[in-house]
Parts: sequence; structure tokens; C-alpha cells
Amino acid sequence: MVIVLRPQLSDERINRVLTAIQEGGHTGYQAGPSTIVVPKNDTSLEASLAKLAEVEQVVPIKSPYPLASREFHPENTLINVRGHLIGGGKPTIMAGPCSVESVENIVEIAQAVKAAGGHLIRGGAFKPRSSPYSFQGHGEEGLKMLAIAREKTGLGIISEVMEPDKVGLVAEYVDILQIGARNMQNYPLLREVGKARKPVMLKRGLSGTIEEWLMAAEYILAQGNPDVILCERGIRTYEKATRNTLDLNAVPVVQSLSHLPIVVDPSHGIGKSEFVRPMARAGIAAGATGVIVEIHPNPAQAWSDAAQTLDFDEFRALVDDVNRISAALAPSRPLVHA
Amino acid sequence: MVIVLRPQLSDERINRVLTAIQEGGHTGYQAGPSTIVVPKNDTSLEASLAKLAEVEQVVPIKSPYPLASREFHPENTLINVRGHLIGGGKPTIMAGPCSVESVENIVEIAQAVKAAGGHLIRGGAFKPRSSPYSFQGHGEEGLKMLAIAREKTGLGIISEVMEPDKVGLVAEYVDILQIGARNMQNYPLLREVGKARKPVMLKRGLSGTIEEWLMAAEYILAQGNPDVILCERGIRTYEKATRNTLDLNAVPVVQSLSHLPIVVDPSHGIGKSEFVRPMARAGIAAGATGVIVEIHPNPAQAWSDAAQTLDFDEFRALVDDVNRISAALAPSRPLVHA
Amino acid sequence: MVIVLRPQLSDERINRVLTAIQEGGHTGYQAGPSTIVVPKNDTSLEASLAKLAEVEQVVPIKSPYPLASREFHPENTLINVRGHLIGGGKPTIMAGPCSVESVENIVEIAQAVKAAGGHLIRGGAFKPRSSPYSFQGHGEEGLKMLAIAREKTGLGIISEVMEPDKVGLVAEYVDILQIGARNMQNYPLLREVGKARKPVMLKRGLSGTIEEWLMAAEYILAQGNPDVILCERGIRTYEKATRNTLDLNAVPVVQSLSHLPIVVDPSHGIGKSEFVRPMARAGIAAGATGVIVEIHPNPAQAWSDAAQTLDFDEFRALVDDVNRISAALAPSRPLVHA
Amino acid sequence: MVIVLRPQLSDERINRVLTAIQEGGHTGYQAGPSTIVVPKNDTSLEASLAKLAEVEQVVPIKSPYPLASREFHPENTLINVRGHLIGGGKPTIMAGPCSVESVENIVEIAQAVKAAGGHLIRGGAFKPRSSPYSFQGHGEEGLKMLAIAREKTGLGIISEVMEPDKVGLVAEYVDILQIGARNMQNYPLLREVGKARKPVMLKRGLSGTIEEWLMAAEYILAQGNPDVILCERGIRTYEKATRNTLDLNAVPVVQSLSHLPIVVDPSHGIGKSEFVRPMARAGIAAGATGVIVEIHPNPAQAWSDAAQTLDFDEFRALVDDVNRISAALAPSRPLVHA
Repeated sequence: MVIVLRPQLSDERINRVLTAIQEGGHTGYQAGPSTIVVPKNDTSLEASLAKLAEVEQVVPIKSPYPLASREFHPENTLINVRGHLIGGGKPTIMAGPCSVESVENIVEIAQAVKAAGGHLIRGGAFKPRSSPYSFQGHGEEGLKMLAIAREKTGLGIISEVMEPDKVGLVAEYVDILQIGARNMQNYPLLREVGKARKPVMLKRGLSGTIEEWLMAAEYILAQGNPDVILCERGIRTYEKATRNTLDLNAVPVVQSLSHLPIVVDPSHGIGKSEFVRPMARAGIAAGATGVIVEIHPNPAQAWSDAAQTLDFDEFRALVDDVNRISAALAPSRPLVHA
Repeated sequence: MVIVLRPQLSDERINRVLTAIQEGGHTGYQAGPSTIVVPKNDTSLEASLAKLAEVEQVVPIKSPYPLASREFHPENTLINVRGHLIGGGKPTIMAGPCSVESVENIVEIAQAVKAAGGHLIRGGAFKPRSSPYSFQGHGEEGLKMLAIAREKTGLGIISEVMEPDKVGLVAEYVDILQIGARNMQNYPLLREVGKARKPVMLKRGLSGTIEEWLMAAEYILAQGNPDVILCERGIRTYEKATRNTLDLNAVPVVQSLSHLPIVVDPSHGIGKSEFVRPMARAGIAAGATGVIVEIHPNPAQAWSDAAQTLDFDEFRALVDDVNRISAALAPSRPLVHA
Repeated sequence: MVIVLRPQLSDERINRVLTAIQEGGHTGYQAGPSTIVVPKNDTSLEASLAKLAEVEQVVPIKSPYPLASREFHPENTLINVRGHLIGGGKPTIMAGPCSVESVENIVEIAQAVKAAGGHLIRGGAFKPRSSPYSFQGHGEEGLKMLAIAREKTGLGIISEVMEPDKVGLVAEYVDILQIGARNMQNYPLLREVGKARKPVMLKRGLSGTIEEWLMAAEYILAQGNPDVILCERGIRTYEKATRNTLDLNAVPVVQSLSHLPIVVDPSHGIGKSEFVRPMARAGIAAGATGVIVEIHPNPAQAWSDAAQTLDFDEFRALVDDVNRISAALAPSRPLVHA
Repeated sequence: MVIVLRPQLSDERINRVLTAIQEGGHTGYQAGPSTIVVPKNDTSLEASLAKLAEVEQVVPIKSPYPLASREFHPENTLINVRGHLIGGGKPTIMAGPCSVESVENIVEIAQAVKAAGGHLIRGGAFKPRSSPYSFQGHGEEGLKMLAIAREKTGLGIISEVMEPDKVGLVAEYVDILQIGARNMQNYPLLREVGKARKPVMLKRGLSGTIEEWLMAAEYILAQGNPDVILCERGIRTYEKATRNTLDLNAVPVVQSLSHLPIVVDPSHGIGKSEFVRPMARAGIAAGATGVIVEIHPNPAQAWSDAAQTLDFDEFRALVDDVNRISAALAPSRPLVHA
């Protein structure tokens, strides 16, 4: 169950509730200033907690991820990033290079994102690479370059953080902290971004089940950070013709289970630039809140992920299609959860 | 390479070409009245064959599935079924029950398909079931019921055939022969439908790679039947939240490799009725030629696949969405292959 | 439940039982002369059937594959092939070429199998090939060559059958009918080999679950053929370093669920000859009843599957290892099911 | 290529080599006191480096993981842990509870490991759990309990570390640092254990390819830590009858590619206690260097992983079988790499 406390309680009064939970034979986990999670339901405890002056509401919950579930939070979560509302109905477009390369390059790309109607600039500063001998990203220098691109365009920026110790540093620069697929179950890292005061985009692991993914989101939410965006970026299957298998089934399934916004990453999801546009279309048609794609003024010369990177022209066509589909489906009968 | 013969050649003259191929150290496979496949390329044989009076054209081909590849046949294959053109631009809608249950039931469904703007009636008469003790379909009686539904509505019918011996029987009734996912690599069956004079819809196997799937199509084409429709219906992955994982990546990838039309089956692809509509939308947005879905006047009472079956109302909403997306994307920049 | 009839009943008396089942609201499936399967349990029907003079025993069963389950048949099934007892404690060794090539070749191989202490000769006469333009096997001529090899050595032979119509023909020649991985759920074929009076080796499909595999075995058993051997030959996973992933987990799991013998095929299971011996060792150590491997006097020149084929010397080392492990484990505490 | 330096060089002389590499247009990565990796081969640079006084040997290498590959290091790596030689021919047995529970409990288990002939005690102090609301391990207290168990038995201890910051702490207590499956590609963590002066056991990720796994090992080796043990613990596949699919194919494949010792974890690999012993047998028969298993005096009451945990009696039977197989295979012809 989830216990919603009255606003602005003193620590002492919160402890009174935690003590009552403990006396009831359960453990309470405080998730933010006015929320306590008790992992098991217990109708008698529920009744006694409901009587406490500190408690506004007690919500019994069956899901193993109470805070991420619609049981606790039926309406969609909306996240405001520099004036753009993720989950607000208009498709969110995030785009940028795989790796941040130089100030000139990232500013040029950011201007192209803005011109096409995009909302956020993506770009890797700390890069998880299969080989220890590959370029590992510009690090903080890359974040500074992103910040310059933000200044020039007013668009928000999103970049990956790979270790707990760097969360503070990365959060100083970015508007959204990205957790990469390899780190979906890096729990110390999830806890740390849960303590940050910035939204987090949590990519699905290569072999993460939908349940494990929502449990990973719960780690973040349980630290009091309510602003989690899920990103489907392709799962690992036996098929060799594509880099990964973009699992669009996950879009409506996640939306039925959770209130968190979900975006799709067709660049990683299929891995070949000529197929990115149709898969972005498909993601939006499946109901996704937005797309994140890799773009570069000259994809063949991109420092990483060249094969799946769009040029500006292809990107504009993608944005047009995404908006066309979104507009076409606006009058459609609402999906069960959308 | 593929050798295209002049029209209307006598057997004797065709044999002359086959002999020339053999003398050149290769084997020729006749695929229909005017096509011979030589699995390997050989520029000197190519040159000598091109000089023969019987030969119209010699097309060198790198693909392991020459007839299914765009190298041999760059433009899309169109298939006319009772006046509806599959691959002709307008999305093809096939719908019906998992199993044909009764005349009344199938006629009621067929009328709903027609009323909603659908084009073909699907329904299982010979059913592949995991258990030998489950209902195995009405067999020929089921085909007769489908034929009555066709008479009443004018819509074409599609039904599965499971064994070589029954191809003749099923082909007498249906407009499209369906090969189920379990039989994607049932080569004697593929050969037999390759000899039939009816279009064939070939479902992708649960763990079929895109290459294996196109090779399976090649078995049909190699027997002289040019009318093959591919159907993506979900692959088997580790994810347990859905019945299968609808692999929409396959849509643009197949379209880049092959001229054959591809439809998607979101009913099997996700396996839960509430998620079928968004996945149908996604399939069309990815570029699919059409969709095939399971519908029933009362899904809860369907004899099989109840959980993934739409009622008529949900089906109409699905058709509307499919048409909305198709219309919205019409002015879009063409995909690489579409 | 399964109803065991008294021996040698007339059809009339069997029908009396079937009628009683029907009157009890259930369907009975006759599986051989003295066995009737009723897919659902029903304690009141059970009691009334137990009173019939025709009935020897009624066994209530929870499994979806009653005849294949240990609930019905707790002790291991043993299958006698020309004096060798499959499942009898001594590891069964089946070996031979992927494709039967010539009389000389198959006789040479058969003699090597015998000399090394093997029990059965494998060899493909009807070959399922991904491409319609690859060698499809010598067909009946290949079976005749196998029969000659049997004559020369006294060893039994096993070969694949791919379509219902050919079961009679193949069964005339072989000692064991093989169902290939692609046909694990080819139900008309399973039914037909279920009617044959020869043992059947059923390979697991590339993406067949253990439950589906045992259900496929049930199709054969339900036709009255009790002699089914299961063969684990590798499943399809994301790993690209090997041809397939030999799932040895399946060995103890199947043995806990079913009384049918299980052998492993490390040749297909890993796909590279240098790794076949350790995987054969592992299969036997996991508890498998035997192994089936591909061998050839000159693997590099084998007509198919060259990469995974052992030469005679490697094969002898494999047989030695298999026997060493089997002997070493003989005094070990029995596994739960072995 | 890998450049092996003469022993005991000053930093200045090492820098001379690094400068020569840079002037040759390449980047050199120092991996320990006498090893430099240059990710690409270059025959002219190779020749000029070989002439330097500082250089003992230059080894050209094709593998993407030079230090982990047999190209650089043909003979097996042996790792001495408190007198037991991992990779030394005698199977290594590591056993213990999923979570360290109490001093009494871990000492009792450690004594059972020793009595049965085991070599290392495993036990989780920092536990990666799917839910933020599950027991996360005793942390440092758990490490202290392990240290007491070591004192009482003289056996080495192995425990997991989950974040870079905790590597120093955990390394103070354990004999082997364990990297869990979820962290196989947690690069900051891999780098940190690469700097530790303790052996590291690197578990394969749930969907890690063999290549990615060896690249992950390379991250550790590249920091100068040569003592890496690989652990196959089951991969994620479509099969639902078992927790994971123990991929024993990986054993001989890894041994052909790398000199690092490989152990198998049948507890996680199959997930049900009754099947752990046959899979441990299979792992050793496939050629693994050792096994790691979960044991508990009363598995039903274990705080985690109860279903896959052996009692002491089952564990003794497992050790006996492992030793029987190892002894039986000793006179066998050596595998290609063993």
C-alpha cells in the first residue's frame, strides 16, 4: 500500500507514521516528503493508518511497483522541461549525435533540431563502450558543449550518466539524466538519480522484462524523484538482420500498467538509418509520447553509431511524419490508456 | 541469376535452355512457364545464355532468394483478390474468427467485416493446436461455411492449410491459402502451395529469421506461384508480458529486400485484445500493406483465442485508425521501399 | 485422466467405455488398443468408469500431456532397437553423415560406428534445406543405401521423414523415424508417425518450449505409438558464436516430467566440430540417455554440415569419453529421475 | 598489438614507448607495469617498437580483446586463492548461501563446504534485488561475518561488489571480488575492480554475448589486474520451465578464445535445486574449471533464492559427482583447449 501524508509534516510527525507501520509488523519506505510505501497490503493496518491525523490517504496496491503503477497514480505523469510538456499530447522529439564531438558540431545540430520543431538535444558525454580502447566520450567537456548548445537554442538537453559519483556533476548541466540500457539494473546508480532533482529517462535493458523495467523505475521513484521517462530502445532477440528488435508491444503494455511517459528510440531499436523513419512513425502510432533519434550533419563521419544516424533532411521528414500521425490520430477513439 | 524466357515457348525449346545451363556446369530450376533460376552467378554462362533466341533477359542476382528479391523484381508485387488489390496503396483489412464455428456465426462476422470496410474474411477450418485433445477445426465443413460467407458478402476468404495432401481441397474453397507460423519451413507443404493457382499468405515462424522467411517464400515462388503475401505475426522472445513480440522492424527490412507485400497480425503479435488496435496502427505506420485480425461478435465465447479477439465495435475503431494513418502518410516523403 | 482397459477387448466393449465417457459429459480419445485419454479429470466419472468390467485402472492426471507424463507412466520407457536398449542404462550412440552420399560412403561410416561401439547409423535421405536450390537428399535411394549399411553391420538405422505421405515408405526402411526440428509441430506428420509401428525420435523445435515439445510427443503417443525418443538439438537464442544453444537444462527437466528417453545432438547444438566432444560429455553427464552426432571420413568434403562433422578419430574419442562418464557416474546417488 | 615491456622500467622509459606509439599514429593503453595495448595492428610500428630497448616483445593480435585472448596469452591463467589453484586441474568448488544471514549460519555453512571438500565460501553482503523494498543485504556487517567464516575454516571467500565506491571496502574483506550478471557492462565498476589487487569473478550478463563478455573482462585486464575468472550463470531465453538457460556451449567456446578460467553456476543457471546436481556434472564434463552453487542448512528458510538452494546432503552428492567426472576424464584425450 502507499500512504499519502498531509503536506509539510515535520520529521517527528512522519516518524510517528513510520512507527505505527512498524508496530503493525511492516516496514515503511519513505519516498519523498509526503509518500510512504509499505510493500505488502494489510487491511487492518490500512484502517488504523487511515485514522492518523498525519495521513491523507491510504491506497492498497497489488503491483510489485506501487509508485510506478496506475493503481496509485491513475492519471498520466506530465514532465515539464523548459516549457515543453512531455506526456502533454504533443509528441516529444529528442535528437542529437551519439557522441558530443565539438562545440561547433553540437550547436549546428541543436539548431537543426530546433528548426525542425524538436524539443530536446541528446548527446553522449560519458559513453559506455564495449571496448576499453574506444573513445569514451569528452566527459565534463562534452557537457559544457551541450550547455552551450542549450544557450544558443533554448532547447533542453539530455545526456547519460554512468556511475553514482557522477550524478551530481551531470545533473548540474543537463535537463534530463539518461540511464542507459546497460545500467537498467544498476541499483546504486538508480538510487542516486532518484535523489537528484532532475527528470530521469530510463532506457530498457537489452533483456529487461517490462516488469523488471518498471521495478527499476520504482527504485528511482522510491527515492522521491517522481519524474521518470521510460525509453524503449530495442531488445535482444535471435534476429540478426537488425541491430536490436524494437519492442513496440511494450508501448501499450507499459501505458496500461504505469502512468510514466514512454518514448521510443528507433535509432538503436533497428540500427540502420534507412529504417529509422518508419519505426519512429510506428512508435508514435503505437501511442508513444515521443521519439529520441540520432542525427548528425554528416552521418558517415559521426564518431559513433554512424550506421543508424540520420542527416538533417531525413530528420525533418521524420518529424513531419510523427506530427502527421499524431494529428491524424487526435480525433480517434482513445486507447485504453493513452 | 534468373533467366527470363520469351513467352509461350514449347517444352522442347525450354529444354534447350536447361541443357545450355547444364553444359555450362550449373543447374537450372524452372519456376513457372518463363522463368529459370540458376542459384549461382557465372558471367560467362550469363553472356552465352543471353544470346539464345529463347532468352529474353538474364538477371544476375546476389540474393540467396532470387525470385523473392528486389534484385530480380524491383517493383512491388500486387495481388488482386476479388477486386481488392493487395499492395495497391489502400490498406488491406482481413478479419474473422480464430476458428470457423457455424454458418450463422461466420456470416454475421463477414457482414461486420464488410460493413467496417474490410476486404477479406479469415477463419480457421483446419486448426493447428498444441494439444491433440483440443478442437482441431471443422475441416471441409468449415471451408463450406466460409464459402457461404463469401457468397453473402462478396468478400474473399483466407484459411489455413496444414498438409500437402489437403492443398487441393482447401484451394477449391479459398481465395488465399494460409501457411501458419508452425509450417514456415514445412517444405513439402510450401512446394505444394507453390503448385496451386491461388495466392499464398506465408506467416513468419516463431523463430524464423527474415532471411529464412524469404527463403521459405522462395520455395513457393520456385514452383511458379508468384502471389505470395508475407505476414509478420510476432516472434518468440524472453518477454512474458505479451504472447509474442510483434517484430515491426521486419516490415521496412522486408520491404527493402523483397517486392512481396507484407501484412501484420497484431492479434497474435501481442495476444491481448486491448492492445491490438495500437499495434495495428503501428504496423500500418511502419509501412505494412495491411493487417489481419481476429474478431468475434462475443469474444469471451469464441472457441479459441478469446483473449486476443476484438468485438465488432473495437474492430471498427481499428479500421478507422488504420485508414486515418494511411491517409495522413499519403503526402509524406516515400520511404526507401514502400 | 487415462483409462487403462483390460487386454484384448472387442471393439464393441471399447465402445461401451467410450459411450460411458460421453454420457459423463466428456470426450475420450483412444490411444492404442487398451488406453483411452480423457483430457479433463472428473472424480465422479472416474468412480463410475472404475466400476466397468472393461476397465483395469483409471489414472487421474494433471499434466496437459497425460501419456507422455510420469503421472501416468512413472517408470522410464525402454525402446529395443535390434537388441540395443535405448534408456537401458548404457549410453546410446547414434552417428552418421548429415546426408547419405553413396553406398560406399555410408557403409564405411557404418563400419566406423560399429567399430567405435556405436548402436545406430543416422543419415539424411529426405533433407529439409533452407534453399529450394540446395541438394534435397537422395530420397528412397538414400534409404536403400542405409539399408545396405545395416545389412553389413547389423546396426539399426534412423532417418528423417518430412511429410505424412512418405511415412509408410520411410518406415519400411528405417528402425527409427526421425522428426526434424522444423517439424516438431507439424501435426499431420506427428499423427502419421503415431500410426506407424516404428519408434520415433522427435527433435525439439528451434523455439519449442519443453511443454510444447512434450505436447508434440503426446500427438504421437495418442495415436497408439508408445516408442518416442526426445532429442535436444539446440535452441535459438541471441548468441551468435555458436550455431544454436544446446539446452542441457532440458535433460533433467524433461526426465522429471516424462518417462520418455532423451538424447542430445551436440553436432547441431553447438555447430562446430571442435566443440562437439565436450558437449556430448556434458549431455551424458546431465543424464541424457544417449547422443546423436554427425561423422564423416572426410568432414571437409561432406555434402552438408561440414563444419560440425567429426572425423572417425574424433568420434572414437567422443565415444570413449561418453563411456567414461557413464561408468564414473554409475555408483553415484541416483538423480531424482534418471 | 600488445607490447610487453622489460621488467621494472621507470615511468620515464615507459613514456618513451608511449610517445613512440603516438608518433606512429596510434594510441597506447598501459595495462599494468609491463604491458601496453595498441588496439590496432600496424606492421611498421610493430617493427620500430621491437627495436626499442624498453620492449621485450611485440605481439600482433586480431582479437578485439587482446589481453583476454589466447593470441597474447596461449597458456591457461592459474589463480592461487589461499593455496587452492583455480584452473589447476582439480575442480574448484565454491558454495554458500545466496545472502549472508548471520555469523552462526555462515560459519555452519563454511564448515559444511570445507567438510565436503569445497574451496571457497560464497555469500551475498551487498545484494542486487529487483525490488527496492526487498532485503538488500547486510552490507559491511555481512562481509565481517564472511571473514569470521574464513577464519574458522581457512577457506577463501567471494562476495559481490555493486558500485565503484565500494570496491575498496569489499576488497579489504574478500579473496575474490564478484561482479554480478546485471553489472557485466558496468564499465566504471569494471575499471575499479581492475585497479584492485584481488582476483575478480565476472558473471556473464543475462543477454551478454560471449564476445561482449570477453570485452568486459578486457576492461578489468586493461587496468592491470590479470586475475579474472569468468562465470557462466545462465542466459535469458524464451524457455519458461527454468529460471535461465545454462549455456554450456560457452564453456568450450570461451576456452578456445581465452586463457581465463571459467566456472559455471548451475544454481542460477537452472533455478531449481533438484536439477542443480546434473547441471554441475554437465558443466564439469563440458570442461569448466569449477562450479559455484548455493547451499543452506535449511533451504526452505533461506532469505533468498530458496528454490535453487541445495542442502548439505545434496551438496556432498554434487561434490562427489564433480570429482568422479573429473577423475574419469583425466586420462581422456585433451580437448582443443582445456
